[in-house]
Amino acid sequence: MTRHELIEQIRAKKSFLCVGLDTDLNKIPKHLLETEDPIFEFNKAIIDATKDFCVAYKPNIAFYEQYGEKGWASLEKTLNYIPKNIFTIADAKRGDIGNTSTYYAKTFFEYLPFDSVTIAPYMGEDSVTPFLDFPGKWAIVLALTSNKGAMDFQIIKDENGEEFFKSVLRKTSTWGNPENMMYVVGATRAEQIGEVRAIVPDSFFLVPGVGAQGGSLEDVCQYGWNKDCGLLVNSSRAILYASNGENFAQKAREEAQKVQTEMANILIEKGL
Amino acid sequence: MTRHELIEQIRAKKSFLCVGLDTDLNKIPKHLLETEDPIFEFNKAIIDATKDFCVAYKPNIAFYEQYGEKGWASLEKTLNYIPKNIFTIADAKRGDIGNTSTYYAKTFFEYLPFDSVTIAPYMGEDSVTPFLDFPGKWAIVLALTSNKGAMDFQIIKDENGEEFFKSVLRKTSTWGNPENMMYVVGATRAEQIGEVRAIVPDSFFLVPGVGAQGGSLEDVCQYGWNKDCGLLVNSSRAILYASNGENFAQKAREEAQKVQTEMANILIEKGL
Repeated sequence: MTRHELIEQIRAKKSFLCVGLDTDLNKIPKHLLETEDPIFEFNKAIIDATKDFCVAYKPNIAFYEQYGEKGWASLEKTLNYIPKNIFTIADAKRGDIGNTSTYYAKTFFEYLPFDSVTIAPYMGEDSVTPFLDFPGKWAIVLALTSNKGAMDFQIIKDENGEEFFKSVLRKTSTWGNPENMMYVVGATRAEQIGEVRAIVPDSFFLVPGVGAQGGSLEDVCQYGWNKDCGLLVNSSRAILYASNGENFAQKAREEAQKVQTEMANILIEKGL
Repeated sequence: MTRHELIEQIRAKKSFLCVGLDTDLNKIPKHLLETEDPIFEFNKAIIDATKDFCVAYKPNIAFYEQYGEKGWASLEKTLNYIPKNIFTIADAKRGDIGNTSTYYAKTFFEYLPFDSVTIAPYMGEDSVTPFLDFPGKWAIVLALTSNKGAMDFQIIKDENGEEFFKSVLRKTSTWGNPENMMYVVGATRAEQIGEVRAIVPDSFFLVPGVGAQGGSLEDVCQYGWNKDCGLLVNSSRAILYASNGENFAQKAREEAQKVQTEMANILIEKGL
């Protein structure tokens, strides 16, 4: 999916919501466990319930990979079930030396035709650029993550007093461009989102951490907004597990719609 | 496998060779492509041919994952085929927020019972420590990698003039210990291996980059050795693709034996 198509979707649906498909057998309604593929059954219901209110789906690959072949089958069925006009993110946090990163890119762009994959930048240029060689596909580079551990390395200051995540932004943005590279920027660090925005004004941000992790949508928009919106705000648990009863899909729908309504107001206010 | 058991294997086999199972359908002998599972057939022959000369096997997960369910099946069969007294490394370079890293740990320690998994440290403590909660299992943290891109971020100097990879070593070594944590240290940066050794004197290093990538075994041992050897030196392509004819396994065996002979001389010289 191109940047233009993504922005069109945001305008049309009045939403920049990404639903994180972190599907956990310990958390889904018990009655689904009796079906042949509980993960897919859950995802299918969640997709049906939320597809009108979101512009992206993001399965975290760890939740599928832990079940090996069976998990990969659930993931593949889930990806195929997502409507084609919705942006898809393989939240895989991959990255390896050049030829190996190419194989990871083939995994998530060809074998499973996701639109994008999240990338850990520690190994540098040849670990990131192979993901940029696929037309219409995106690398989403970890910049400033929403977890506690982000404070261990990402904010270490260099000789010029600048935090490490800013080096990541400055260098990686010369390898890609706003048409093929986005950044993960955690909602839990609202003011730093503004610092990220200053370095990469045109890039989209994938923003985890709103809701369960404590980030606020208002703050994210205050600091991260650009002329095209420039944000995909992710919510996983708050939507997926709004209820663990038989009404889980309806409750997920209500939760997604609630976020989308907030987003619509912001988009209208911002003139998009 | 415990540290003690690993050291015993090194002494018994007079080897600290790790064979990287980066099995590539474009490089394996053509006659294997007609078998039902060419990746496993190749690995099986390579394991039979080299198991007397190495103490570890390291499949890089990208090579398997790119074939989805089928690749996972090949990986599982390969892991099951490796003799139980040989250390196994899932070269996966994973890392995510806490609960997600736990799922990756379950993938590579429970679903596929590897002894260890490689970890990208960018997301900090809660992305690394879940891998340390499994008795007898190891986290192998990327410190200083062998690829060109390692120079992009890993050597950025902090306010005290110290390179970033050293921060990674100092912090992560307080989360784990030499019984459950190793480091990836590239053979292509021989003198820096000594700097790594000074920070983590007792830890094992997984050393890629000898052979095809240009690193020298002698240099690695000069700078990286500790009283227990402390090194697992990986070779992938030089052994796997020593020949692409029907004699590939025999040639792989000869190549592995050549490296093991060099290692035996070093071990004897060092009194192990």
